[in-house]
Amino acid sequence: MQAFEYYSPTKLVFGLGCIKDKLSAEIKARGYHKVLLTYGGGSIKRNGLYDLVKSELTAAGCAIFELSGIEPNPRVTSVDAGAAMCKEHGIDLVLAVGGGSTMDASKAICAAACYNGPAWDLVLDGSKIKAALPLFTINTIAATGSEYDNAGVITNWDTKEKLPIGSPLLWPQVSFLDPSLTYTVPAIQTVAGSCDMMSHFFEAYFVRDLSPIAQGLIEAAERIAITYTPKALQEPTNYEARAKLLWASTLGCNGIACLGSSATIFPCHAIEHEVSAYYDITHGIGLAIITPRLLRFWLEKDPTVAPRYVDLATNIFGLRRDDYESEEALIEAGLKALEDFYASLGVPSGLSKLGVGSEHFAAMAEHIKTHWIASFDYCYVPMTNEDIVTVLDRSL
Amino acid sequence: MQAFEYYSPTKLVFGLGCIKDKLSAEIKARGYHKVLLTYGGGSIKRNGLYDLVKSELTAAGCAIFELSGIEPNPRVTSVDAGAAMCKEHGIDLVLAVGGGSTMDASKAICAAACYNGPAWDLVLDGSKIKAALPLFTINTIAATGSEYDNAGVITNWDTKEKLPIGSPLLWPQVSFLDPSLTYTVPAIQTVAGSCDMMSHFFEAYFVRDLSPIAQGLIEAAERIAITYTPKALQEPTNYEARAKLLWASTLGCNGIACLGSSATIFPCHAIEHEVSAYYDITHGIGLAIITPRLLRFWLEKDPTVAPRYVDLATNIFGLRRDDYESEEALIEAGLKALEDFYASLGVPSGLSKLGVGSEHFAAMAEHIKTHWIASFDYCYVPMTNEDIVTVLDRSL
Repeated sequence: MQAFEYYSPTKLVFGLGCIKDKLSAEIKARGYHKVLLTYGGGSIKRNGLYDLVKSELTAAGCAIFELSGIEPNPRVTSVDAGAAMCKEHGIDLVLAVGGGSTMDASKAICAAACYNGPAWDLVLDGSKIKAALPLFTINTIAATGSEYDNAGVITNWDTKEKLPIGSPLLWPQVSFLDPSLTYTVPAIQTVAGSCDMMSHFFEAYFVRDLSPIAQGLIEAAERIAITYTPKALQEPTNYEARAKLLWASTLGCNGIACLGSSATIFPCHAIEHEVSAYYDITHGIGLAIITPRLLRFWLEKDPTVAPRYVDLATNIFGLRRDDYESEEALIEAGLKALEDFYASLGVPSGLSKLGVGSEHFAAMAEHIKTHWIASFDYCYVPMTNEDIVTVLDRSL
Repeated sequence: MQAFEYYSPTKLVFGLGCIKDKLSAEIKARGYHKVLLTYGGGSIKRNGLYDLVKSELTAAGCAIFELSGIEPNPRVTSVDAGAAMCKEHGIDLVLAVGGGSTMDASKAICAAACYNGPAWDLVLDGSKIKAALPLFTINTIAATGSEYDNAGVITNWDTKEKLPIGSPLLWPQVSFLDPSLTYTVPAIQTVAGSCDMMSHFFEAYFVRDLSPIAQGLIEAAERIAITYTPKALQEPTNYEARAKLLWASTLGCNGIACLGSSATIFPCHAIEHEVSAYYDITHGIGLAIITPRLLRFWLEKDPTVAPRYVDLATNIFGLRRDDYESEEALIEAGLKALEDFYASLGVPSGLSKLGVGSEHFAAMAEHIKTHWIASFDYCYVPMTNEDIVTVLDRSL
């Protein structure tokens, strides 16, 4: 087992109707008075959440400022705008209401509000984050787990970069998780969210030294995604399906699935971020397309990693060793089950279906090497630039 | 899935040699200067840990006060003594070095140091805890998980009571977990620790509505106990075995294994606490004796709970449904595997081997009904006083 430090101080409030009265109580208990309410395209106005949040903030005696229109793949321009509002109005709490994009942008806003300079500085060098405003989140989609981690991903459209921002100061203080808020998530976003969640856990699963506690947790989360995503699609207001997906996704990025294992460098995320920085495709869909190609590439390059692929087949997809004539056949059936599962959700068969071409692949691989959180030498199976391009080519 | 709130703010520092330099750094970062060092019978002086801790505290510029001799099944008299020292010397940090007893007593000391009155008041009514000194722990045994929860168990020898104390204020601030510190744990305590850990997870497993994430985590933890306890006994300095047991045990009581499930009332712990309050037997051993009797009683009283017993047999003990002619036979094999496992560790076949008689069983059942954290009406299978006595009788 590997050494680690772990600190995950966000208070989680989970359940049906968990915002009413509790949001105002948590704010009052901490004495906040000036709130920047951040959200995306306005779906929260259609489903009643906006009104509920406003009434809670009013009950807590807060002055309310709003930043709406935060984009999918949130842009640093929105972060700078939010930080300017915080400075101008003396905001003492940021309340993010939405999905991963809104929460990620809001974390960057919390940091940039306490920094003299452009927010992109803090993306490029997280050690420059010396203070941050407190953040509450109300998460409306089972996907990124941003409600329970201290990082986000910000896109700079000028430089074609999509990079993580992170700091121990960026844990949300309180995150509210009401599964019923995800009833109205469109099917395509439900799929993308589950694919993102699955990728977070796969990133922690395909490591050289996997802690057995982490393995149990990850396999349970993957089984939940496989079982309950189709249920949520068939019956969008199925509380149990939505709740199980939401809770699993919440644990996808806070570190607990990695503790005791060899470090993961989140390679699939690294590759997908490059693609969506160039083409603005939906993150979760990109991950679902790349994942099986990446897994097949690793096994091809280094067959000694086969045992984890057996676990994938048996412990996640419930296949039985006895039903296959060889371990290779079992592994192939597991990978096929994963591909079939993604296809059953309507994930396109390749990136080319989303308008992606190969022209920037070499540049993407080069960019990963210089800008990602760690070198691909520390990948499950170490990868060269050429290897990254191969995986991207096969994902087309 | 059930609603929940979750807040688990302890910083964990895990790994070989994790105390050196890091203990002093964590203290200096928080500016503490007067430390009450608490420990038990002095084993920490034999294995070098005491000297290491003293040198770290000295490096952090701390004045050191000591409370030694904290008992197994720690007594409220020790708590009162520690609290008096804190008040007398203006202690600003309590550092518990030892196992569950030392950590539990130290939590109570942290609370009682900020209270005018006897510590037992705070056991009887946790809402009286309005403030508490900060606590660091250095855990030396894989067992209670007290290093990562906000509760403890205190014994009042005068009233023959062993009761929990808890408060949101009692989370340790930082807990250090070096698996090599558990190399010198005697075999019987290694066994008792694993049995305690297993019971914590079983308490969260045998509930009506088990969250699938919790199920995955719990089954992994039980498999770790079953696999690595014998390894640690055969080879006490096996780092991997000790590390896996220590990390699993750390997650046993912080709540994560319960999130989303129906609430557990920790019934096996309730019953065992009664026995050890009267007879001062080793907690983990008492749990291991009572557990299979309790599980068999539940199944007998309400056969509809059988599916979880199938999970126990298949997911924890790795038995295959196809190898048994009926589900009943599979369940019986799972329960037998559990009993055989405890026996293989040297757990006595019954409480009578530890000097326990039946004379106080009725009083114990009555005491549980009035003093435990919740009524046995909310047990996995609701239990009357007579049912509790039946389980105790069968455990003799």
